[in-house]
Amino acid sequence: MSELVRVAVDAMGGDHAPEAVVQGVVDALNASKEIEVLLVGDQTAIEKCLTGAQYDKTRLQVIHASEVITNNETPTIAIKKKKDSSIVVSQRLVREGKADAFVSAGSTGAVLVGSQVLIGRIRGIERPALAPLIPTTKGFSLLIDCGANVDAKPSNLVQFARMGAIYMEHILGRKNPRVAIVNIGIEEEKGNALVKQTYPLLKECGDINFIGSIEARDIPDGYADVIVCEAFVGNVILKMYEGVAGALMGMVKETMMSSLKTKIGALLIKNELKQTLKDFDASDYGGAPMLGLKGLVVKSHGSSNAKEFKQSILQCIAFKQQNISGRIAASITADKELLSASENKTEE
Amino acid sequence: MSELVRVAVDAMGGDHAPEAVVQGVVDALNASKEIEVLLVGDQTAIEKCLTGAQYDKTRLQVIHASEVITNNETPTIAIKKKKDSSIVVSQRLVREGKADAFVSAGSTGAVLVGSQVLIGRIRGIERPALAPLIPTTKGFSLLIDCGANVDAKPSNLVQFARMGAIYMEHILGRKNPRVAIVNIGIEEEKGNALVKQTYPLLKECGDINFIGSIEARDIPDGYADVIVCEAFVGNVILKMYEGVAGALMGMVKETMMSSLKTKIGALLIKNELKQTLKDFDASDYGGAPMLGLKGLVVKSHGSSNAKEFKQSILQCIAFKQQNISGRIAASITADKELLSASENKTEE
Repeated sequence: MSELVRVAVDAMGGDHAPEAVVQGVVDALNASKEIEVLLVGDQTAIEKCLTGAQYDKTRLQVIHASEVITNNETPTIAIKKKKDSSIVVSQRLVREGKADAFVSAGSTGAVLVGSQVLIGRIRGIERPALAPLIPTTKGFSLLIDCGANVDAKPSNLVQFARMGAIYMEHILGRKNPRVAIVNIGIEEEKGNALVKQTYPLLKECGDINFIGSIEARDIPDGYADVIVCEAFVGNVILKMYEGVAGALMGMVKETMMSSLKTKIGALLIKNELKQTLKDFDASDYGGAPMLGLKGLVVKSHGSSNAKEFKQSILQCIAFKQQNISGRIAASITADKELLSASENKTEE
Repeated sequence: MSELVRVAVDAMGGDHAPEAVVQGVVDALNASKEIEVLLVGDQTAIEKCLTGAQYDKTRLQVIHASEVITNNETPTIAIKKKKDSSIVVSQRLVREGKADAFVSAGSTGAVLVGSQVLIGRIRGIERPALAPLIPTTKGFSLLIDCGANVDAKPSNLVQFARMGAIYMEHILGRKNPRVAIVNIGIEEEKGNALVKQTYPLLKECGDINFIGSIEARDIPDGYADVIVCEAFVGNVILKMYEGVAGALMGMVKETMMSSLKTKIGALLIKNELKQTLKDFDASDYGGAPMLGLKGLVVKSHGSSNAKEFKQSILQCIAFKQQNISGRIAASITADKELLSASENKTEE
């Protein structure tokens, strides 16, 4: 058996912290003997949550952090000011090699910004990317990038495509994943300047299965496994999922309550419908990996429950065992020519 | 009573042409005495459709055009090559002042490109914009721009905001319409370079009711009346409506057919649900105006039926009577300083 995978977990992040986080950690420890957790946050609060829980105590270490970064703080400032926050302390553990991965449901900005600054990028990676899974009618796809860095360059997008493909293949078992770039038409000549410059570079990549452009309307139907886009567009896609689904289902519910007849109909399909909607909730896919860093960072959504924390933590095992960071680094080294060529084109 | 509004209608555009177009024209003529229609296309086919129809013949003129531009042709080439196509002939009628407006459900590219080239922009307008209505839980909003020109400048977006506000107020009767810019967060410092440069310019506009940023998730809930964005983003928003709604409703239908119980439930709510979904179909709002041209251009969607053509044609009455083009021109003149200031900032 390989050595333990050490995961730093932010006990203070998310709407249901620290209770849901601690429960998720306990469940993860019981689900796998391959992990060790460094649980970071208010020691008293954490220990209170741990009271009575059954788990292998040799694989859990509580690390006290006296501060908490809230969602209302400016990430860049919070990271500098709150050096003893659960987020910064966790990130330092990864930087110092004391942890392999970091899981947090706290401030997205602080997790993203802090991880870039404190954990650092894999050599050769120009920009890390946040890559949530999004639901489709055929399962799920990886949407990369939805992070905090907008206005990407073509060479950034090529790296996103590679990192996304490596993740989908080796963590999620999607063989030879189809990679597509978000565009306003499927013809090669369509697109904005960024897409037009990126498209031929992706075509040249021998190591990914690039299938061309994808229009936004085809994303929810699962036409591609890895959806590549710039972060502003990725954010719009992710939030349109939420907005359209929410608005539509609100209207469906209203319709169902509109008369006695429809109310009876609603009763007969309610439970089945609930499950369908849960399957199609983009916010419900737990942790989104932030790829391109020296160590995995998993950003769990704020409303995560214990089950989702458990999944986010367990995800770190495959990440280490499959040597994702090593594979990403190797894909960069293997392709210096393409990168430097694209840089010359876009570094105006 | 004011003089007649003359509308050039492309008889050959759309999936159900010419039958649905001709029927829509007849219905529009019967619905309003204020319009005159120039019906452009294959004369024999048009006259066959008109056989037996009752309408005021003094207000309909059939203008023969021997060619048709298909959706598969490259717009820029088609416009040059097919000078006797229904689209080009219609556009020429507007340019020559023989028509006030042009309605087509034909090739979107040919309508947009041809209208810019042949009809021309209002003096001072840097770029025309396609502005479809999109459904919300509270009615509808105007999304501007979803056109063919991507990579807009801040000054373009300011003009989109003004044109959109003028249209919503004077054509659709939305008093003091709320204008918002699509962003990845609601804080002023958020955004990509384009949004960060545009935001302060919109704040300075005394003539629009700028309410700040809108996140994509809030668009379907009708938080703003005019949603300003660059065309690539607008295209993604519009198509995510279609994609998410389509995928979700496919899954709901599948759920309803999954057992005898759910099938009975489905029977009881089927009709009501259909209407709700129709209300929320972004492709179902008939014609989208293309704003900023010397004359109104209405792009109807390809699957338009007679009722939608009628609506698109009748829309042109208010456009002329409310002097929308004049109002747009005036808003530009009144604000030269802001425009030139923004140009200096962005013309690198």
